[in-house]
Amino acid sequence: MIKIIIGTNRANANSEKIALIYHDLLKTMGESAEIINLNALPDDFVFTALYEYNGKNEEFNRIHNRVREGKKYIFIVPEYNGSFPGILKSFIDGMTYPNSFQNKKCALVGISSGIGGGSIAMSHLTDIFNYLGMHVLAFKPRLAKIEENMSEDLLTNRLYMDLLKEQAQLFLEF
Amino acid sequence: MIKIIIGTNRANANSEKIALIYHDLLKTMGESAEIINLNALPDDFVFTALYEYNGKNEEFNRIHNRVREGKKYIFIVPEYNGSFPGILKSFIDGMTYPNSFQNKKCALVGISSGIGGGSIAMSHLTDIFNYLGMHVLAFKPRLAKIEENMSEDLLTNRLYMDLLKEQAQLFLEF
Amino acid sequence: MIKIIIGTNRANANSEKIALIYHDLLKTMGESAEIINLNALPDDFVFTALYEYNGKNEEFNRIHNRVREGKKYIFIVPEYNGSFPGILKSFIDGMTYPNSFQNKKCALVGISSGIGGGSIAMSHLTDIFNYLGMHVLAFKPRLAKIEENMSEDLLTNRLYMDLLKEQAQLFLEF
Amino acid sequence: MIKIIIGTNRANANSEKIALIYHDLLKTMGESAEIINLNALPDDFVFTALYEYNGKNEEFNRIHNRVREGKKYIFIVPEYNGSFPGILKSFIDGMTYPNSFQNKKCALVGISSGIGGGSIAMSHLTDIFNYLGMHVLAFKPRLAKIEENMSEDLLTNRLYMDLLKEQAQLFLEF
Repeated sequence: MIKIIIGTNRANANSEKIALIYHDLLKTMGESAEIINLNALPDDFVFTALYEYNGKNEEFNRIHNRVREGKKYIFIVPEYNGSFPGILKSFIDGMTYPNSFQNKKCALVGISSGIGGGSIAMSHLTDIFNYLGMHVLAFKPRLAKIEENMSEDLLTNRLYMDLLKEQAQLFLEF
Repeated sequence: MIKIIIGTNRANANSEKIALIYHDLLKTMGESAEIINLNALPDDFVFTALYEYNGKNEEFNRIHNRVREGKKYIFIVPEYNGSFPGILKSFIDGMTYPNSFQNKKCALVGISSGIGGGSIAMSHLTDIFNYLGMHVLAFKPRLAKIEENMSEDLLTNRLYMDLLKEQAQLFLEF
Repeated sequence: MIKIIIGTNRANANSEKIALIYHDLLKTMGESAEIINLNALPDDFVFTALYEYNGKNEEFNRIHNRVREGKKYIFIVPEYNGSFPGILKSFIDGMTYPNSFQNKKCALVGISSGIGGGSIAMSHLTDIFNYLGMHVLAFKPRLAKIEENMSEDLLTNRLYMDLLKEQAQLFLEF
Repeated sequence: MIKIIIGTNRANANSEKIALIYHDLLKTMGESAEIINLNALPDDFVFTALYEYNGKNEEFNRIHNRVREGKKYIFIVPEYNGSFPGILKSFIDGMTYPNSFQNKKCALVGISSGIGGGSIAMSHLTDIFNYLGMHVLAFKPRLAKIEENMSEDLLTNRLYMDLLKEQAQLFLEF
């Protein structure tokens, strides 16, 4: 079962909508998936689940365990301040040893309000995931100007849907 | 007055010790500095100072204001999981518009337990700071294997002290 | 005198046109500049000016000397294959010690046919220039979809001209 | 058959020695490999095989074809000036469409005289290969201070040999 990680804790984020779209897309391909929203992390986990508290915050552990049991991940990565959201890195900083991503595989989807499409965000994440021993699918769609390309909870840009489909197909074979 | 930012919230971090050493170093050069420790951020700021709460967490604002009033910054950047700590990015994600670093200048010091010296961490931060319009001093010391090169709260590796001095000198002229 | 470096050896490159536009822009601001085109490098310099031939190719040296005598540089950086052109890095690999960019300053302009605007290319170059001790202006315009935004040798997108003007102004004060 | 690419054209490069060591290592694992040395590229290919000359330099094409027929690659990547050698990028810039690396897989080995081990070089290359659609093995050994860890043509640092073996094992399963 593929884990789809929403890479932000922003409420009602576009990333959440894309995660749902991706979930449905995988379903039509006969693949089951589970969405994990960083929004569900305990509010103070950056101070209560890291360093000397590593592994000791039960609420953090519950979500961490759901992540850890996966083998394949899709990260929906919004661009904030020229990179990915800090909370995603803090979640990684709270993982216990051996890290939850070692020898696993992931795919990245970049999202941005501006024209970048999260390319730098995904480059940074690739560095980190590779450092942790997780292989990253080469194909990383960049969904730029996301607000202009969504209506309600749907992607109105057919190209963007095609990019997700192409990625999903490649990821199932990865 | 230079602001020295400790780029982690880990208690008793080596980054804090390096910040104190840098503070003293600047003093001997006739320059005053103030240390700002991300450890002082409110525990839940990632959920109570970002997005719809942007600018509304008074405790966050107090620290943010101390950062914002600066013109020059030195960031002590420990390497966690192949990049810099997530909390530093979350702090940036909580800044209000216009961002606090626009048209300002900073210097970076990388720290690591391993051999990397935080070079990737500093590369990622440089991308982000440049995106925000802050100029980054080219010279970025990498203090690798930091535990082996400190004793009590002192840097025992003379080369490392020389690197900090060289950086401080360049930064004052930057 | 500012040196404007055309970061490719492609004949009649858009980068060359942008270099000329930037040259004229600086002129209107009362600043003189010189354009250096990597196209003028000797065809075989990658094999006759590096390593054991470092400093021994007179034709390479002539261009290298023109670069070396500068204090401030503007690099026009087209995106090729997700980064900047290899020839620009080979030129750097051919520089003699101490490197020609130590303690100098530069500004980068990214150009792309696609939507990226060369952001990854400029990130990579920033890493390299910082490694060499050259400070990079934070503001790095990304001129995406360049073919659609030029006509003859002119930038038809007013925003793009404004970005170059803003950068030039910032660079003169840098 | 795995293609081992020596990522520089320097004569008698350490990268060449590491390529031979890797070749032998793969042999002991029952895997055949072929070494391709960028040193064999025509001296002037940066001017005679790119852009309007794309695909028209027969000497370049011969080497390009040997690369293109591969499915899996190991790149030996020396760190030059804070990144990988320019010639490797120029080789990529000379590839014809569709690019030779699309949907293929590679592993990277970083080499440096200094302490970095080529981590930034490999980060840059990963960006480029991912852009071209080639998957990169997460595990990327960094062979720092290479001169101190070789004697004649052998790696004297047992850890370095172990890293190469671990990578080879992972790559065969990738």
